[in-house]
Amino acid sequence: MKVASIYGPAQEDLRLVEDTFDRIKHVENFPALSRMLEHVLGGGGKRVRPAIALLAGRFGDYNADLHVPLAASIELLHTATLVHDDVIDASPSRRGQPTANALFNNAASVMLGDFMFAHAAELISRTDNTKVVRLFAHTIMAIAGGELHQDLSAYEYSQDTMQYFARIEGKTASLFATCAKGGGMVARCSQAQIDALTAYGLNVGMAFQVVDDILDFAGDEQEMGKPIGSDLMQGTLTLPSLLLMERYPKDNPIKKAFRTKKPRAEFVAQAVQMVVNSDILDETYGVARDFRDKAIAALATLPANDARSSLEDIAGYVLERRA
Amino acid sequence: MKVASIYGPAQEDLRLVEDTFDRIKHVENFPALSRMLEHVLGGGGKRVRPAIALLAGRFGDYNADLHVPLAASIELLHTATLVHDDVIDASPSRRGQPTANALFNNAASVMLGDFMFAHAAELISRTDNTKVVRLFAHTIMAIAGGELHQDLSAYEYSQDTMQYFARIEGKTASLFATCAKGGGMVARCSQAQIDALTAYGLNVGMAFQVVDDILDFAGDEQEMGKPIGSDLMQGTLTLPSLLLMERYPKDNPIKKAFRTKKPRAEFVAQAVQMVVNSDILDETYGVARDFRDKAIAALATLPANDARSSLEDIAGYVLERRA
Repeated sequence: MKVASIYGPAQEDLRLVEDTFDRIKHVENFPALSRMLEHVLGGGGKRVRPAIALLAGRFGDYNADLHVPLAASIELLHTATLVHDDVIDASPSRRGQPTANALFNNAASVMLGDFMFAHAAELISRTDNTKVVRLFAHTIMAIAGGELHQDLSAYEYSQDTMQYFARIEGKTASLFATCAKGGGMVARCSQAQIDALTAYGLNVGMAFQVVDDILDFAGDEQEMGKPIGSDLMQGTLTLPSLLLMERYPKDNPIKKAFRTKKPRAEFVAQAVQMVVNSDILDETYGVARDFRDKAIAALATLPANDARSSLEDIAGYVLERRA
Repeated sequence: MKVASIYGPAQEDLRLVEDTFDRIKHVENFPALSRMLEHVLGGGGKRVRPAIALLAGRFGDYNADLHVPLAASIELLHTATLVHDDVIDASPSRRGQPTANALFNNAASVMLGDFMFAHAAELISRTDNTKVVRLFAHTIMAIAGGELHQDLSAYEYSQDTMQYFARIEGKTASLFATCAKGGGMVARCSQAQIDALTAYGLNVGMAFQVVDDILDFAGDEQEMGKPIGSDLMQGTLTLPSLLLMERYPKDNPIKKAFRTKKPRAEFVAQAVQMVVNSDILDETYGVARDFRDKAIAALATLPANDARSSLEDIAGYVLERRA
């Protein structure tokens, strides 16, 4: 399935989002910064988040002059957090491409991320709605808080699934919720509609991250551009790992792997094998499906139009993707 | 001179700025983050920037409900950039205190800075003025751009004073300009008044950074909490270094120091000695004085009230400080 085809009424204005990035990439008298922005904003992303923001706007007074900056702001914010994440994790590559920190060093990448945050703030101000600006600010807090929780709990194996869900709500689902909520707010939807859109976004985001965490055990290394088991190598416990630890509380390879902050690859490989050979991934997919179902159910009160069909398709796609 | 005494009519509301920080420091269910914020926001700063923002508001409809969030936002933004700078420079201490990255590691410090940026954005949205939000966004771009220029030009000795002035305008003066301009905008001052305040802020900021760069050669190591010559050790050319290179274009210790990215301390010490023994610091002070004079002259068209006296005193203080 080609993703863009499911974006329906958002497809056309997603091109304006790309145009916005093209303008941002060009920084006068600063070719080095332009090159960095070109690298991190250069197409290839699926633009799921901006698509949701644009589609959510279709349930009220859709206005491209406001919704396009909103959608671009959110994708830019998302990309900025990836740039900072890659610095933090010292990741050499993302989706098969070298990361900014690998190409331009850490110092430049931190500043590049800050520059992109600033541009995202500039774009969000173009919605001319300080409530949306506040939503944007709270979302960055949630993302940074979620990442911080993840960092502080790295290599800690006394975590439970509640903490996991709180963490992925912060680091991933909060931004999906903001896409849908922001789109509705800018379109001056009713509060009930905004609440429905927010619930949709939050649940799609949860499903998205749970699937991400499955793919770290069973995805296509080539397409993902990173090795299987990367989360465990970085000390991050995700739902499949937590379920493995629940089943083998006393003796399991994750405990052994987390004894040092440089896990031995053999223990991680062993944990991956145990997960893949069990029904843990089926159970985890079940959790992702529940989130998807909740997302689609949340749309039930909204008019059954093209935009709603696209949002439903996006929720479906989130579960089917293999990378 | 005790700095607070020159803040005049801003003194009282600066306490409300501190109260705002106290609220921000307390993050529910996240004691680790609260401790980090306590460390970086815990008093001790001179709060020059928020003082300027509050004072600028006195030339129009001053409103503490809007001006205090503005002032707090700017100081928070400033502190966030320091947190990221210290990560980039891998600085172990700032003003005699261990840096966030020294205490909490780089990963947590990048996220801490992002969290603070987000809070700054949240506070700026409380001015309920999307033009001010946009000003805030452009300022972050200028700061990140200035830092990026500095990073990319590190250990490059083919720089001129023009590039230096552009760099410090971005990384330092732009925020001072935003303090004064933002204060005027929020108070709905006339455009002529806002322009005067902006010129004041920009020139005070330039003076501030030039003096900072002098202190790196001749300041009190104890009070600054960092060794003399730190800029050269990090490959940063400032005005005194540039003047030294102008005078000794062929053979000078900076050229030798910059041959590698780990300058030998003896070459840096030699450069510091040559600068201190020459009239270069006098000449540099002359440049700072010119900026101060321009700052004070810019205020001439504004009513001669308490706030204006305080702004004049701040411009004077910026030149007299020894650390």
